[in-house]
Amino acid sequence: MKRITIREVSEKAGVSTAAVSYVLNGRIGKVSQETVDKVRKAVDELGYIPDFSARSLAGNRSKLIGVVIPQTEDRKQLLLQNPFYSELVCGIEARLRQSGYHMILSGVDKGEGYLDTSMQRNLDGAIIMGIYQESFYEDLKKVRLPIVLIDSYIHDSYFHVVGVDDELGGYLATKHLIDNGHTAVALVTGSIRKDGVMEKRFLGYKRALKEAGLFYNPDYVFEDSVSYEYGQEAGRVIAEKHPDITAVFAVSDMVALGVISGLAEAGRHVPDDVSVIGFDDISVARMCHPPLTTIRQDIVGRGSMAAERLLQAITDSEESLPQEPTVMPLTLVQRDTVRRLTPE
Amino acid sequence: MKRITIREVSEKAGVSTAAVSYVLNGRIGKVSQETVDKVRKAVDELGYIPDFSARSLAGNRSKLIGVVIPQTEDRKQLLLQNPFYSELVCGIEARLRQSGYHMILSGVDKGEGYLDTSMQRNLDGAIIMGIYQESFYEDLKKVRLPIVLIDSYIHDSYFHVVGVDDELGGYLATKHLIDNGHTAVALVTGSIRKDGVMEKRFLGYKRALKEAGLFYNPDYVFEDSVSYEYGQEAGRVIAEKHPDITAVFAVSDMVALGVISGLAEAGRHVPDDVSVIGFDDISVARMCHPPLTTIRQDIVGRGSMAAERLLQAITDSEESLPQEPTVMPLTLVQRDTVRRLTPE
Repeated sequence: MKRITIREVSEKAGVSTAAVSYVLNGRIGKVSQETVDKVRKAVDELGYIPDFSARSLAGNRSKLIGVVIPQTEDRKQLLLQNPFYSELVCGIEARLRQSGYHMILSGVDKGEGYLDTSMQRNLDGAIIMGIYQESFYEDLKKVRLPIVLIDSYIHDSYFHVVGVDDELGGYLATKHLIDNGHTAVALVTGSIRKDGVMEKRFLGYKRALKEAGLFYNPDYVFEDSVSYEYGQEAGRVIAEKHPDITAVFAVSDMVALGVISGLAEAGRHVPDDVSVIGFDDISVARMCHPPLTTIRQDIVGRGSMAAERLLQAITDSEESLPQEPTVMPLTLVQRDTVRRLTPE
Repeated sequence: MKRITIREVSEKAGVSTAAVSYVLNGRIGKVSQETVDKVRKAVDELGYIPDFSARSLAGNRSKLIGVVIPQTEDRKQLLLQNPFYSELVCGIEARLRQSGYHMILSGVDKGEGYLDTSMQRNLDGAIIMGIYQESFYEDLKKVRLPIVLIDSYIHDSYFHVVGVDDELGGYLATKHLIDNGHTAVALVTGSIRKDGVMEKRFLGYKRALKEAGLFYNPDYVFEDSVSYEYGQEAGRVIAEKHPDITAVFAVSDMVALGVISGLAEAGRHVPDDVSVIGFDDISVARMCHPPLTTIRQDIVGRGSMAAERLLQAITDSEESLPQEPTVMPLTLVQRDTVRRLTPE
């Protein structure tokens, strides 16, 4: 297929090639909004793709990276209040700064919106945290930039992925509870979707149960959202309606803290009455009382690795496809929220 | 004084005016590093000041804001792991996005470095968190951008300030402990420097003591760094060497959590043995056990207000000097870490 040229875009839009170039390179202050709109419309209609490799070769790098963070449910704010994301950002920024890159941090509503941002800012690449609808990823590909995904199990070689083995993490957490004599182990989780992080952790939970010869009981799975508030609610329900449950695997530390709080409200203490294990090892995990037993991932290190892979992809020739996902290690950190259950 | 022109810079640097313009507008991909260096040298030597207002009038806005966050002590990472900063960033980003602005989030070692960044990126303004050496602020002024400071009591009308009344906060916290019957009240604080946030909170602490007719005892002031780790250390020392202390005002929630942990290690419980009040009301304050009594500031709202003031300053004409500092409200939030001390 013949490549669409800037000249064709300028003819279609009825503006000068210089104006097209301004818009494509994000110098939108130089032209009127009307021109911007005309050029974008022409780009869309012609399916024009900026010649990223040529731009790279010319050394016209912006040294600017887009970092996308999921937003709160009402889309009003970034989820940066979840320490998991802020620790990732720490790792990303430190690595980028080392190479003279800067980072634009933002939330995003739709992939198309991000297409605009990246064109306007002439981004060199992007790191996407969180999980989005499939159409978002399809839109992202139109950006034609190197992109690193965190938290996604999407099967598409277009994207670079820096993840952890969530199935293994779920397995390790549940096994630790079982190894401590617990047989009635609940799972408190966010929405379990096909190929999502939650599903993997859920599968690990089931594997550990099966391996220990324990039946999987759907009543022990509390599934809603990955939030402190839902953890609280699940903790209350467990305390009030499931006195048989002696241990909880919470899919994130924030959820685990919520579970502990919900249990406490109902008069049940951790770890004396119920054992709880979390996932992530956010910095708060060691600061709370009792300090949280959890599956640790090096969150800052993961951010740093995501930046590393992105910089590598930017430097490499355009031809090279993303390699295999980078899988960061997970380890069990034993603190004070899991108690050995001695047979009565 | 006659204004230096771009032409004079180009003559001094021995490059074209177009090249000077590229460098000043951050299009450094268009010219060689040698040219960039020459132009910057000429700009420095001539004391050239970019005509910000003219640029604004021409509508050549980058719609890009710099947000500076302090770094960890080893300068390796952003202090974003401190929820205070990540919550501020949430508020800033949400407000900027609403007006179609983006944010470059970074740490910075010296003011001069930030001068480079802001020129290179053609920033429209900046929000600076944390407290820096005086020379940093002097350097910042050379950037000739609207700048909003958070956490600073610097007396310079060049800067916009969005703060809280830290003296009042220190007073309210200490008074709450005294009102609950405590007379031996410790202060755990970061380094107390003239005109700094810590000094103000310290002055509030002293005012409350004085008002209640209590003597100020320097042995009750534990001064080092604003960190969870120092809080822990102070908690241990209080437990071991100061059995007379029945209440602690910690200058931040992170410090308070550390104090509670240090006390617990030494077998003293909050609030049964010692009462603790924090400052900030970061989201973790309500999640920890026991939930923390604290002086609440609306951190997200403060970030949002900082962005609001900056956008205002960008829109306003260059002539208008910053108004008075915006002072955000503080309120006492009573949770479970302060106990009423009944006379024996």
